[in-house]
Amino acid sequence: MTYDLENLFSFLRFPSISTDSNHASDVRACADWLITKLKDIGLTTELHETAKHPVVIARNQHLPDRRTVLIYGHYDVQPVDPLALWTSAPFEPVIRDGRIWARGATDNKGQMMAHILGVEKTLREQGELPVNLIFLFEGEEEIGSPNLAAFLQQHREELRCDVIAISDTGMVAPGVPTLGYGLRGIACCEVILRGPKGDLHSGLFGGVVANPAAAIARIVASLHRADGRVAIEGFYDQVRPLEPWEREMWASVPGASDTDYLSVTGSPSLFGEPGYSSAERTWARPTAEVNGIGGGYQGEGSKTVLPAEAFAKLSFRLVPDQDPKEILLQVQRHLEHHCPPGVTIEVKPGHDGKPYVADPNSKFGLAARAALRSSFNAEPVLIREGGSIPIVQTFREILGVDTLLLGLALSDAQIHAPNENFPVENFEAGIRLNQALLIELAK
Amino acid sequence: MTYDLENLFSFLRFPSISTDSNHASDVRACADWLITKLKDIGLTTELHETAKHPVVIARNQHLPDRRTVLIYGHYDVQPVDPLALWTSAPFEPVIRDGRIWARGATDNKGQMMAHILGVEKTLREQGELPVNLIFLFEGEEEIGSPNLAAFLQQHREELRCDVIAISDTGMVAPGVPTLGYGLRGIACCEVILRGPKGDLHSGLFGGVVANPAAAIARIVASLHRADGRVAIEGFYDQVRPLEPWEREMWASVPGASDTDYLSVTGSPSLFGEPGYSSAERTWARPTAEVNGIGGGYQGEGSKTVLPAEAFAKLSFRLVPDQDPKEILLQVQRHLEHHCPPGVTIEVKPGHDGKPYVADPNSKFGLAARAALRSSFNAEPVLIREGGSIPIVQTFREILGVDTLLLGLALSDAQIHAPNENFPVENFEAGIRLNQALLIELAK
Repeated sequence: MTYDLENLFSFLRFPSISTDSNHASDVRACADWLITKLKDIGLTTELHETAKHPVVIARNQHLPDRRTVLIYGHYDVQPVDPLALWTSAPFEPVIRDGRIWARGATDNKGQMMAHILGVEKTLREQGELPVNLIFLFEGEEEIGSPNLAAFLQQHREELRCDVIAISDTGMVAPGVPTLGYGLRGIACCEVILRGPKGDLHSGLFGGVVANPAAAIARIVASLHRADGRVAIEGFYDQVRPLEPWEREMWASVPGASDTDYLSVTGSPSLFGEPGYSSAERTWARPTAEVNGIGGGYQGEGSKTVLPAEAFAKLSFRLVPDQDPKEILLQVQRHLEHHCPPGVTIEVKPGHDGKPYVADPNSKFGLAARAALRSSFNAEPVLIREGGSIPIVQTFREILGVDTLLLGLALSDAQIHAPNENFPVENFEAGIRLNQALLIELAK
Repeated sequence: MTYDLENLFSFLRFPSISTDSNHASDVRACADWLITKLKDIGLTTELHETAKHPVVIARNQHLPDRRTVLIYGHYDVQPVDPLALWTSAPFEPVIRDGRIWARGATDNKGQMMAHILGVEKTLREQGELPVNLIFLFEGEEEIGSPNLAAFLQQHREELRCDVIAISDTGMVAPGVPTLGYGLRGIACCEVILRGPKGDLHSGLFGGVVANPAAAIARIVASLHRADGRVAIEGFYDQVRPLEPWEREMWASVPGASDTDYLSVTGSPSLFGEPGYSSAERTWARPTAEVNGIGGGYQGEGSKTVLPAEAFAKLSFRLVPDQDPKEILLQVQRHLEHHCPPGVTIEVKPGHDGKPYVADPNSKFGLAARAALRSSFNAEPVLIREGGSIPIVQTFREILGVDTLLLGLALSDAQIHAPNENFPVENFEAGIRLNQALLIELAK
């Protein structure tokens, strides 16, 4: 086994499951191991306690007149259950069919270790990095980074940098280098409709009072037009139109065609806002989604109840330049306006996060593209992500810099699921990518 | 304590919970006790085994040229949980505030024992009943009478009768004798919409495929017009219009005004089919109710999932002359026609039962009204019931006769709930009612 794989395997053997307090000492041991590893390659390290799992910082000697690059990663992993579905033990990494199989192989230990080994290789070969480097590795990403924003606030001076790089997103297809330059934002809320003071017998009372389960259907149905467009007044007003180059590039991005989306989702057909391709719909158009709807009897068979209340959990994926707070106000107005008679309505706002977009033609964007091109020997594609990574927006707000999303995760990497895996070639390309990236960002 | 109350209390002390197999021997002991009681008063008895709990039959000596009256009741009761909410133990009956408190006090042991004691009194006073009597008491009513129809089929010759009487429905207000002459029918179904092959991340896939939770809302919303009228094509075609006398009588029935319905339900306002009062809406107009709706995340807070499927459990309360099978076909056509794109639909038909109406001016209807009038010393009101009692339709189909619904249950009797109760005066009136009823039916 190569030195690089040996390092990754050691890292993967820690069951650093951040959500499970039984594994707190494993998370800690993993952080300690990281500190040792980072010291060994010649970096100075700091282990910062938080309310839960520590933050690991490492840096080379910083020189004036050199760019400062912050590379973020996380050393915690998701739980492994159902364990029975794993072909090999989640914390005993093996190589099969050219892939590394283990919990964390892709998310995020594999991608993170590629950065560490790239830095190690450069230091060994050149004796020095071309940039001032800050490694920022947290142990709480899988539980929502509860302590990271406060940490950034507290250490914003020491973490001052020119640009941030993260390898924790997807690449569209094997061998196709992918630069992510945008993320959708999010706004969540829950709507609760209440009717009778308790559940009623639908025979004795059906027809005489509003049924909250029927009312929730009516109010939720009002969110969309029949053609799939969101029907909330003003919802699209601040949406930045797609650039012609985006539509052109996305039309040919591998792995993101309508056919790909159809096959990955397994839906009987595609459905969404008219006038846009699947890639455009997920990466650059906002949505209104029903994440949960419920009311009345949920068990087997039938029960003739007229429920006292019903709810819907809604989330809105947002794109530049929509503002989550403004959207939530529009949503609230819409829901109250469309509330059927005979029920009372409560709208509980939930969490939100701003959409993110950076210019892939900025000097750092161009540098990232050059690094991707040289390390994969292929022309990178430029995409936005449909999901939301709140930490990226937090970095921009607290540290004032943009983030380059250099994802190495394939769509079949099984992250958060049994049989997580990472192609050896992605791991090796990631090491080359880190080396090229620091060179390009230094230019 | 009076002899009558002592008898009822003994009957109430059996925890004859038919749904709970731990209580199977209590149900059996209750049936055995009934047999002894009925023998003691001079009837001949039969205990018939079924697949679960026995049927108890008792009869006087039948003479030719005398009317035969079948009185139906059930000796099983509902479970008692949550036990903590009972003021006194459910199977230790007590009298408080002029009411008998115990599980089964109203439903159905109190009403059933009134019939038995009425017969006992008549036999003691007159030595004979004015009619051929058949008592038919089952122990499976609270579990849906799974074996009764087969029993009726098998014993239809021995059970041949002219009319049936049941005291197992409501009286509209204390002291107001109530004859029920109609019941709504029912047709149930469940609709399941399926989209992606598994739950999807709503960030990565939101906007590109149909969301089954949004689709179920859309399809359910299509069932009603905004004004509350059912929007299914042909749904009202077979509905028999209300008779002018019904609208007139119901306008002044105590306990059934719009204000009563508003106060009993606790809904913020009434809502239903335009052009009808609350009594008319529940007793003589059909409905489409959503008994349950569900899909996606049901827990606390939010989870940004795009669910693979969603469901709605629907029931339709039907009135003469709607046919449940025909309605289910209309419903299925409607649901399929209104199914949004991007999901597949499955409609599972559930149980159904025909609506029922009898003529309250028939000779037996007039006899029942005379008996109610004399035993309560008040003019009876004539109502239909909003609920469905499938056994009544089964009696008509198998035995070919109508059923008189002589309900003694008040709306605050707490049947199926903690603190079930039965006014002593209703119990005593019930005994008088049985005596008067047999006399009137004999005429």
